[in-house]
Amino acid sequence: MRNLEICFSPALFHLYENPEITVVVVDIFRATTAICTAFDHGVVRIIPVTTVENAKQYKDKGYLIAAERDGVKLDFADFGNSPYNFMQEGLEDATIVYSTTNGTQAIHMAASAAKVVIASFINLSAVADHLSSSSEDVVILCAGWKDRFSLEDAVFSGALAVKLLESEEFVSGCDSVTASIDLWKEAEKDLIEYRTKFAHTHRLKHLLLDDVIEFCLTPDQTKKVPLFKNGSITCD
Amino acid sequence: MRNLEICFSPALFHLYENPEITVVVVDIFRATTAICTAFDHGVVRIIPVTTVENAKQYKDKGYLIAAERDGVKLDFADFGNSPYNFMQEGLEDATIVYSTTNGTQAIHMAASAAKVVIASFINLSAVADHLSSSSEDVVILCAGWKDRFSLEDAVFSGALAVKLLESEEFVSGCDSVTASIDLWKEAEKDLIEYRTKFAHTHRLKHLLLDDVIEFCLTPDQTKKVPLFKNGSITCD
Repeated sequence: MRNLEICFSPALFHLYENPEITVVVVDIFRATTAICTAFDHGVVRIIPVTTVENAKQYKDKGYLIAAERDGVKLDFADFGNSPYNFMQEGLEDATIVYSTTNGTQAIHMAASAAKVVIASFINLSAVADHLSSSSEDVVILCAGWKDRFSLEDAVFSGALAVKLLESEEFVSGCDSVTASIDLWKEAEKDLIEYRTKFAHTHRLKHLLLDDVIEFCLTPDQTKKVPLFKNGSITCD
Repeated sequence: MRNLEICFSPALFHLYENPEITVVVVDIFRATTAICTAFDHGVVRIIPVTTVENAKQYKDKGYLIAAERDGVKLDFADFGNSPYNFMQEGLEDATIVYSTTNGTQAIHMAASAAKVVIASFINLSAVADHLSSSSEDVVILCAGWKDRFSLEDAVFSGALAVKLLESEEFVSGCDSVTASIDLWKEAEKDLIEYRTKFAHTHRLKHLLLDDVIEFCLTPDQTKKVPLFKNGSITCD
């Protein structure tokens, strides 16, 4: 049996870090949802970078840039952080450099693991199947909001945990897993209604960016499972 | 209106730290429950210390010592961390030096706040009343388990959050508060049954120390509200 744990904040990841595990990075609003959307629409490579400066350097080299801070698209970037940005025509076979407030930082933090998987509601079942057919212990890393706990990331983690534990290949003695499952069971009664509880729903609404929330909460829209390896995210 | 937040781990406390707030320290299994029990049975002063070495120095000076690590009483100590230790005769007017794996560390971490309150289920309503009649914003600091999220501390925090928000003196836009309330609403259906979900229940059972769990989950057994100030915990 393989072990399953959930880490609620990048600032706690040192407690879970292990070169032999698979880390599943989650940033539902919106980085990991946007990344899964991009691959579903033909993008072939995403280079996550942690600093704005680094994103600018790639811009100068002619790369397409997606970059935001605190929800807002940066001036020099070609795209912000909305999944809708990546549904447009002309992105087939594209490489995109990507930098966000929380999600891309968490992806880089996970780099020491044996495998890094990018997950969201839109590829939930595909990620669960991928993990069930691999062999490592799993830590789900919630990107959170500036190192704080994010409810939407925890709710998603609960949904994924239910699938993994049901496969009977995983066990867990981790309170974060138990809590996330209880939160998911409450949320799944009406996930779209439950969205009003997320603090980030209100941040996005304030920025007039809340049009993506329902999309971000709709499971199984793609079978793509993006993996982060050697500095790039790609799909097999 | 006053702001209410919950911090799920001492390792995240730097995100919430503020000299103008009241911090409510929670370590349900078992430090804060034991501290409240001690005051309810006549103890007048508890000196929390973070290191075993410091506890030993107090022992050499003739102080009564309560000390444990990983749930187990240390050899040189007079008591471990069970609330039952503090129900015995002869502790009236006693001062006790106290050092535990998580709880006493969290208490010291909170020391920079305007006020530090020691809370547990056994003084839940008394703490809620105390907070409602004071004026600062409130952060509930969960002691957790070696910096990890602890479900029993979150469930308690949810119970306290419900009381504070019902008083209509507090507001919260904090996802940790929303999550804790949802967890409490699930747990309160049958809190004694819910105990089997806590990872620490199993740790205590393994150490044959689980006799205290039901006591630790029974609300409102005392009206004492211990406060940490200038290095000591006392009650008004």
